[in-house]
Amino acid sequence: MFKTALAAGIDTCFANPGTTEMAMVATLDRVDGMRAVLTMFEGVASGAADGFWRASGRPALGMFHLGPGFANALANNHNARRGLSPIINLVGDQTTWHLPADAPLSSDTQKVATWAGWHRYVTSPNDISADTAAAICAATTGPRGPATLVIPADVTWEQAPDDITSVAIGTLAAPDPDKIGAAANLLHQPGAALIVGGSWLTAEMAHDATAIAAATGCKVFSYRVPNAEIGQGIPHIADIPYFPEQATQVLASVETAVLLGTPEPITFFGYPDVPSETLPPGARRFDLGGPAADTAKALVALVEHLGAQRHATGPVECPEMPTGALDVGSLGAAVVAGLPDDAIVVQEGITSAAGLRSYSVAAPPHRTFSPTGGAIGGGLPLAVGAACASPGRRIVSFQADGSSMYTIQSLWTMAREQLDVTVVLCNNQRYAILEVELLRAGIEVPGPKAASLTSLADPALDFTSIAAGMGVPSTRATTADAFAAAYSRANSEPGPHLIEAML
Amino acid sequence: MFKTALAAGIDTCFANPGTTEMAMVATLDRVDGMRAVLTMFEGVASGAADGFWRASGRPALGMFHLGPGFANALANNHNARRGLSPIINLVGDQTTWHLPADAPLSSDTQKVATWAGWHRYVTSPNDISADTAAAICAATTGPRGPATLVIPADVTWEQAPDDITSVAIGTLAAPDPDKIGAAANLLHQPGAALIVGGSWLTAEMAHDATAIAAATGCKVFSYRVPNAEIGQGIPHIADIPYFPEQATQVLASVETAVLLGTPEPITFFGYPDVPSETLPPGARRFDLGGPAADTAKALVALVEHLGAQRHATGPVECPEMPTGALDVGSLGAAVVAGLPDDAIVVQEGITSAAGLRSYSVAAPPHRTFSPTGGAIGGGLPLAVGAACASPGRRIVSFQADGSSMYTIQSLWTMAREQLDVTVVLCNNQRYAILEVELLRAGIEVPGPKAASLTSLADPALDFTSIAAGMGVPSTRATTADAFAAAYSRANSEPGPHLIEAML
Repeated sequence: MFKTALAAGIDTCFANPGTTEMAMVATLDRVDGMRAVLTMFEGVASGAADGFWRASGRPALGMFHLGPGFANALANNHNARRGLSPIINLVGDQTTWHLPADAPLSSDTQKVATWAGWHRYVTSPNDISADTAAAICAATTGPRGPATLVIPADVTWEQAPDDITSVAIGTLAAPDPDKIGAAANLLHQPGAALIVGGSWLTAEMAHDATAIAAATGCKVFSYRVPNAEIGQGIPHIADIPYFPEQATQVLASVETAVLLGTPEPITFFGYPDVPSETLPPGARRFDLGGPAADTAKALVALVEHLGAQRHATGPVECPEMPTGALDVGSLGAAVVAGLPDDAIVVQEGITSAAGLRSYSVAAPPHRTFSPTGGAIGGGLPLAVGAACASPGRRIVSFQADGSSMYTIQSLWTMAREQLDVTVVLCNNQRYAILEVELLRAGIEVPGPKAASLTSLADPALDFTSIAAGMGVPSTRATTADAFAAAYSRANSEPGPHLIEAML
Repeated sequence: MFKTALAAGIDTCFANPGTTEMAMVATLDRVDGMRAVLTMFEGVASGAADGFWRASGRPALGMFHLGPGFANALANNHNARRGLSPIINLVGDQTTWHLPADAPLSSDTQKVATWAGWHRYVTSPNDISADTAAAICAATTGPRGPATLVIPADVTWEQAPDDITSVAIGTLAAPDPDKIGAAANLLHQPGAALIVGGSWLTAEMAHDATAIAAATGCKVFSYRVPNAEIGQGIPHIADIPYFPEQATQVLASVETAVLLGTPEPITFFGYPDVPSETLPPGARRFDLGGPAADTAKALVALVEHLGAQRHATGPVECPEMPTGALDVGSLGAAVVAGLPDDAIVVQEGITSAAGLRSYSVAAPPHRTFSPTGGAIGGGLPLAVGAACASPGRRIVSFQADGSSMYTIQSLWTMAREQLDVTVVLCNNQRYAILEVELLRAGIEVPGPKAASLTSLADPALDFTSIAAGMGVPSTRATTADAFAAAYSRANSEPGPHLIEAML
């Protein structure tokens, strides 16, 4: 199993093993080159595997302890599925002949795996290499996503044969030339828009999309791309906004939408009297290739078909390092003004990240990751995985307080692996997005119970203490100046650091 | 929904809501008498609901955010199922007409609910009261366990009718008199053993079981009872040990096993060349009533049928408050010697709790809870729920370090609700049970990867800082004397306190 993975270039395993995985754990020591990274909660491992893929283009393994343990991995597994990130989940299970005894920790592990996506129950050590290859193939062939092997303990007790099934990371489908031509024609029409989804949006792709817009007059939007290059010299592709009214507004004049790498844009939730679709009802939808498509190749093909010209993008004025009060705006400006070169910014936060989002086009070129599936607790684990994949690269984990607590155990793995992560923990002491959602539900003045269920105050979390408790050095910043100083120091020192930004 | 629950005596809701639950959240403020307790992770809410039931005999509600959020609740939901604890899970879901849009946070919530046990998808506000009543009935009728309502957001937007379906907490089945007679006959035979499982073992039941043993000459064992009264004046019923070899040994002379409230005892995991069954192969098994049976009534019926006499139990020598080194033995002795009257001790820990288990018969009468299903992370949430159900009663949460980290967010809810919990955090810096399991797997000297995957050192967790960060006062104890002083103070002050016991 591990050798099959290694032969495919998969060399990292985020692990949270239990008794049924002990033979797998022992085997790791007999496989040179396979790194084992311990996490203290399964959701950290599944999110880290997602982040590892996004940063490196190589999938990682996750190792989990049968049904309930793997259940803890499902939320970030969901995020990986929605973000089109392959993960190879290795999930132990009870010894086959012990299952009829219905032991306390027995459960329908396969049903959990079904929910997680592609899955296979491994029935023999003779199949383990082929089954691993099948999982790698399933995970990396578009649409990419998690693939799960459920491996009963007795299968792991026996020696597997030495021969290894050869498998390579899957490639995505090249665009259909006829469709490229049809899309190019449509993009010339008035009210045309190119909407780009899929798993990433590189600087090259942003240049291509901008060239296509210039050549055809179409608008260009990105739509929930979990992994995007952004910053100075990279054309800015506008995101379709989160809230339905704003999304509907930016798309109001669209008459023809060419959809690349994504189904049509929709609202995140269903609200009373708000349609699911954010495109105008009468707008034409053209499917240039869904989540299984190679969006980069499709953009290149469009550029070539159109004879579009790529142009250099002029500089954007960079915000100065702010001083004075620390708020959503000055925090975003400070993160951007002090961002190291070639960083990865992992964003989990809606309200707290508003400033960061608006300034980030002025930052040095960097990558930005977001937990696309909407399951809470994706941010810190993504940062763990990105850092494991990118030695020497600074990861800035821009993290809301409420969501951080779902996978706060990530901090310990950052400390153990001495990962170069600067955690910017935005402490506003509330689930601010839920306050907005209460307002949207017509509750202008929440009653005491609703208020208590959206507040993180009383007591206030002290993230500097939590970080210290998990071995991560930490600083609290209550002004922009203090934040800037701490941020500069954190980014220049090796290993993790947490800055609690008091908003 | 809430009024139906209230009418059945259910008055507490452990909640981790999101956008699709906002109408439910707002409704809470219109229902007097329904308490809402916020948790920062779903597994805390499901474990707390379990603990609330065990302490009070009243189920609690859990409120969760659709598929991935509820997935986070599954591990402790599994523990509740195996511990026969009813929970009523209220799980939001996407607006029905928004499901076809396959939004990023959409998933098969019903499939998650299927794994969790009994479940129903609520299709109309007109049904919500009847559906709630059905869930309460399903959860509390034996075998008890979680029951889940999946409630799409649009169902919660509309006003439900005022009429409430009346429902009462279910009762368990009384024993069949013929079976009682047959069991009584069998217990008189040589090599007979009465094995008592089920959801609780009260002092009364322990007296009854001991009287039965005295009247018939049978042995008596308890088997994975998640909620037991123990201490001075309560006859000690021996537990069947955790490891298979020890379990097989204590049961070696059994020729006839009368099983009450449980299927036959089995090993926790399947190991090479170790049978699942821990009873001798030729022993007769007699089923006096499985997990759906009222074990207390069955014991009373046996006592009456046999004319058995209950006797007072003599005192057990209480360990002195230890001094000197802090280790598993002295820690257990100290916890017992200083245990407040009528406490609830929640145990999650196998190796660290060995001393506590051996001394606890000498403690003042108390209750002990354990996470029966084997899913990690049950202990701290059980303590949260037990404390919410038992104002004025001291909860001692005796907690291993590794398992604590799965639901460490529990500390914050303890602080917010000012729960009278003394957390005894056993810090041995390793997953000691996995070291034992590696040994069992024949790995006497783990390689560096296996060693790293079972070690919590490098960096060491500092639980006093983690607790302080979540608003819980904390102390570190490195000697038995220091532990005793901190423990006495913690137990006498209101609100939570964490003592990190360095082992």
